Amino acid sequence: MTRLVNVPEDFPAESLRGFVLANKRYVKPVYGGVVRSTATRDGKVAVVYGGGSGHYPAFAGWVGQGFADGAVCGNIFSSPSGAQAYSVLKAADRGAGVLIGFGNYAGDVLHFGQAIERLRAEGIDADTLVVTDDIASGSKDELEKRRGIAGDFPTFKIASAAAEAGKDFEEVKRVFAKANDATRSFGVAFDGCTLPGADGPLFTVPEGKMAIGLGIHGEPGVDEAPLGTANEVAKTLVDGLLEERPEGANRVVAMVNGLGDTKYEELFIVAGAVHDLLEEAGIVVEDLESGEFVTSLDMAGISLTLTWVDDELLEYWNAPCDSPAYRKGSVKQVERDDAVLNNEAAKVTVTETGSEASQAAASKAADLLGEIATMLESKKDELGELDAVAGDGDHGIGMENGSRAAAKAAQALVADGAGLSTTLAAAGDAWSDRAGGTSGALWGAILTSFGAALGNEDAPTENKLVEAVVAAREAVQRLGGAEVGDKTLVDALVPLTEALTTTEGDLKTKAEAALKAGEEGASSTTDLVAKVGRARPLGQKSVGTPDPGAISLVEVARVLLGAL
Amino acid sequence: MTRLVNVPEDFPAESLRGFVLANKRYVKPVYGGVVRSTATRDGKVAVVYGGGSGHYPAFAGWVGQGFADGAVCGNIFSSPSGAQAYSVLKAADRGAGVLIGFGNYAGDVLHFGQAIERLRAEGIDADTLVVTDDIASGSKDELEKRRGIAGDFPTFKIASAAAEAGKDFEEVKRVFAKANDATRSFGVAFDGCTLPGADGPLFTVPEGKMAIGLGIHGEPGVDEAPLGTANEVAKTLVDGLLEERPEGANRVVAMVNGLGDTKYEELFIVAGAVHDLLEEAGIVVEDLESGEFVTSLDMAGISLTLTWVDDELLEYWNAPCDSPAYRKGSVKQVERDDAVLNNEAAKVTVTETGSEASQAAASKAADLLGEIATMLESKKDELGELDAVAGDGDHGIGMENGSRAAAKAAQALVADGAGLSTTLAAAGDAWSDRAGGTSGALWGAILTSFGAALGNEDAPTENKLVEAVVAAREAVQRLGGAEVGDKTLVDALVPLTEALTTTEGDLKTKAEAALKAGEEGASSTTDLVAKVGRARPLGQKSVGTPDPGAISLVEVARVLLGAL
Repeated sequence: MTRLVNVPEDFPAESLRGFVLANKRYVKPVYGGVVRSTATRDGKVAVVYGGGSGHYPAFAGWVGQGFADGAVCGNIFSSPSGAQAYSVLKAADRGAGVLIGFGNYAGDVLHFGQAIERLRAEGIDADTLVVTDDIASGSKDELEKRRGIAGDFPTFKIASAAAEAGKDFEEVKRVFAKANDATRSFGVAFDGCTLPGADGPLFTVPEGKMAIGLGIHGEPGVDEAPLGTANEVAKTLVDGLLEERPEGANRVVAMVNGLGDTKYEELFIVAGAVHDLLEEAGIVVEDLESGEFVTSLDMAGISLTLTWVDDELLEYWNAPCDSPAYRKGSVKQVERDDAVLNNEAAKVTVTETGSEASQAAASKAADLLGEIATMLESKKDELGELDAVAGDGDHGIGMENGSRAAAKAAQALVADGAGLSTTLAAAGDAWSDRAGGTSGALWGAILTSFGAALGNEDAPTENKLVEAVVAAREAVQRLGGAEVGDKTLVDALVPLTEALTTTEGDLKTKAEAALKAGEEGASSTTDLVAKVGRARPLGQKSVGTPDPGAISLVEVARVLLGAL
Repeated sequence: MTRLVNVPEDFPAESLRGFVLANKRYVKPVYGGVVRSTATRDGKVAVVYGGGSGHYPAFAGWVGQGFADGAVCGNIFSSPSGAQAYSVLKAADRGAGVLIGFGNYAGDVLHFGQAIERLRAEGIDADTLVVTDDIASGSKDELEKRRGIAGDFPTFKIASAAAEAGKDFEEVKRVFAKANDATRSFGVAFDGCTLPGADGPLFTVPEGKMAIGLGIHGEPGVDEAPLGTANEVAKTLVDGLLEERPEGANRVVAMVNGLGDTKYEELFIVAGAVHDLLEEAGIVVEDLESGEFVTSLDMAGISLTLTWVDDELLEYWNAPCDSPAYRKGSVKQVERDDAVLNNEAAKVTVTETGSEASQAAASKAADLLGEIATMLESKKDELGELDAVAGDGDHGIGMENGSRAAAKAAQALVADGAGLSTTLAAAGDAWSDRAGGTSGALWGAILTSFGAALGNEDAPTENKLVEAVVAAREAVQRLGGAEVGDKTLVDALVPLTEALTTTEGDLKTKAEAALKAGEEGASSTTDLVAKVGRARPLGQKSVGTPDPGAISLVEVARVLLGAL
């Protein structure tokens, strides 16, 4: 249970601040995360890792010589925004290209992809390193659909060593891809974790049972089994991973990872058993790690990661590094880099003042965002519960945080005389920034594109409002790549938009029809299917609840209809 | 909840084995614990730390260059035996004296004191470093009665750096004493931990409350208070420690320690708040640590430790070190020391064969030990519950493990033809070794002295049996230093012995009177008072349960009477 909290929304930021204070010899803050506080030579490929918070030491605990150049730190279990990733990558850039590594989750793919596009547009070599180690999250035939869990650690360690050794952009990418290909993980959970400010755990596992293949955000497992002895648990994990033993491979780096509440004394017992089982299988254990590497707040559970190494991967694995949470060998001490970083410019800024009519519309939009935030606050638990069935349960909190931040940003811009487009662009940025996750990115895009269609000059007419909704729908589909039938908010958004454009009558009539079509679309999402990164575990069928993103969309539409 | 277990009795040994496999570049095993696997120069004062297991990284996680030379690892929350400590200290000895550091608990004081006596008898400079940092466990006027908690970490780090710097035996002791004087800790707990194999937690804290001043083995707190915000918890801890701020001191090393289930993200929030509160009080925070240093399995809770430093202490604190769980700066890599250590000779060995009569008596004694073990197994939970009221709840498990090991050792020696004295000496050693804790040491002494009084030649007569009980009573009082009225097993043992020697009649009549007197003595221990190291928290009155050690003694006496 997560208990030491001031204000739940501030939990990730306050935690990061304390981390920096306790690790000043390694890191310093920058908008969106941290970078090394030690000097890094020009001409080194920058490697930055990121994702939601709540997984310490992943990712900030790995920033330091020989390991990461920086870390992007989102909200709890929520992707950072594209602007945050851009900011950290810019701060880490030393002129030889930047790489951002993360586990394969839809939100991270979306946000970090946006940051990469922005850097490339500036002429910087930039790319992603996507970890796909979790064998429980997808079949062997669709490796690219697997999510990333504790395999983040060895793959990032190895890629970082290649970058530290002076390898160039393409070579670091090659080494990472090789390490990711060679890395597999498998985990079990014994009990859930509690999000800061939540009343109860994200999920529970019955006493004496274990959830097999459970994700690090509380995603459901493949199966439930009786919790056996430590040796039996070790055997379950080793057997699972040996099913994917590469042809001819017989050297591994093995890592037993504790998810939070499962303690070192227990992990060591499993590590000893894993060691014996691997040796019995004729495998050379080149290194054995046992500890907390990628956690999930105070979740009870463990995972095993195997990286099948050759001389090259082992050399990078064994290379010296020195970070808050992990070190190897002796690194050469370097001078400090005390430059204070201010990358707030990574945020979208507002430069244009709106017409009087557009200012009035912006003011109304800001008020509506406040109403939406109040509605989403009241539905937070319900949306979280829906999301916890197939996802990580953060949808309610994310929508509340995002909409509240958007309303606040909008009010500030209205006070400064911004028009509707600018106001909604800033609101969208704030939503994306605070909400994180896939839905944060999509709602950011909805607000931004909706506003852009209406501009900063004209008062929005009924026709223009309909066109703006269509523009928002297009942005969502362009960005997220989802089609009707994929069981996402698109399943509600497309019929809603269609009804809005085809229904005869005044705006209210059109909107009523649109809401009804949206509701029907949302209810069609109950038979969830696998999505990249938040993959339906193998063998699990429909879970019988609708997609929370589609439900949220309908609820927002209901607020807007009420204001007509 | 501790879940990953094979056989509960083997938990500490299996855990230690896995730890060694995962940390071969730092440590290697030796009877009783671990020592460095890196070469250590001759002429260095050896510093070894130890105590019960369940506190990882304390103590084995600190073995490595610049930090500990070795660690003695007992059963969960139970002191290692004197023989184990002797073994590790001998392995660590480099000819310049050996020091053993530990938190101030009765069992450790007793066992490690025995090891020190044995080393001194061999002409080795040897002494103890006793940590007394917990302000909740004793008043300012009786600092020596305070127990040691997370303050183990900074005091041992500092003393170790002095030893690594080449300081001599007396100088390392002086530096340690200075660091201990300058170090204070204060902790709160939110929920209890579960001993391996136990059905439920050692204690629970009501939801939304925190136990203030709770010990790292589940000892009761000073007080219970509502669990406030993270900032409020930080203020409780800082305010408590600033009450003992030394005159003129204004530089600290601060350490926020998580007890197991309270995770890094939460600890960092508290660390940030502690940092701010100390700065507001005009104190210079020379270093801030936040993480798991001295845990209590999966207990939920945190503690704050402040070490008030001057230039000397800060220099030792900042000195480089490299151990499995903590490192600072860059240590010079040294060669490995792969010598395999076999210190089994540290165990008391048996060299003498008994007379036929004594062998028969030994066989009967071994059977009786088996009966005692069966009885103690059936009373394990009851004794554990009694102990959990004022202690750490391990008395039942310790007595069961100890008596079972004693019975097994006795049977093995009987099979080899040992007499009564030798058989009971080995049984006593096994009891002390497996049971750990104060009672383990005392029961080891009871068996050994009882057997020694009867020898390996003569058949034990009724008179000699009575004399042997008196000898055992004398050994207990000599070793433990307790008097009648101290609310220990002595309160049962003394009247029992007295009734045995003064009652007229045959042995059975005497024994019946003795049991009755013992029962009365045990029941007089209900008003428990503070004991060194397992101190009654400030302000807490009688707990209304008898001393579990006295109850165990009476139950053993009952088994013996039944055999007459």
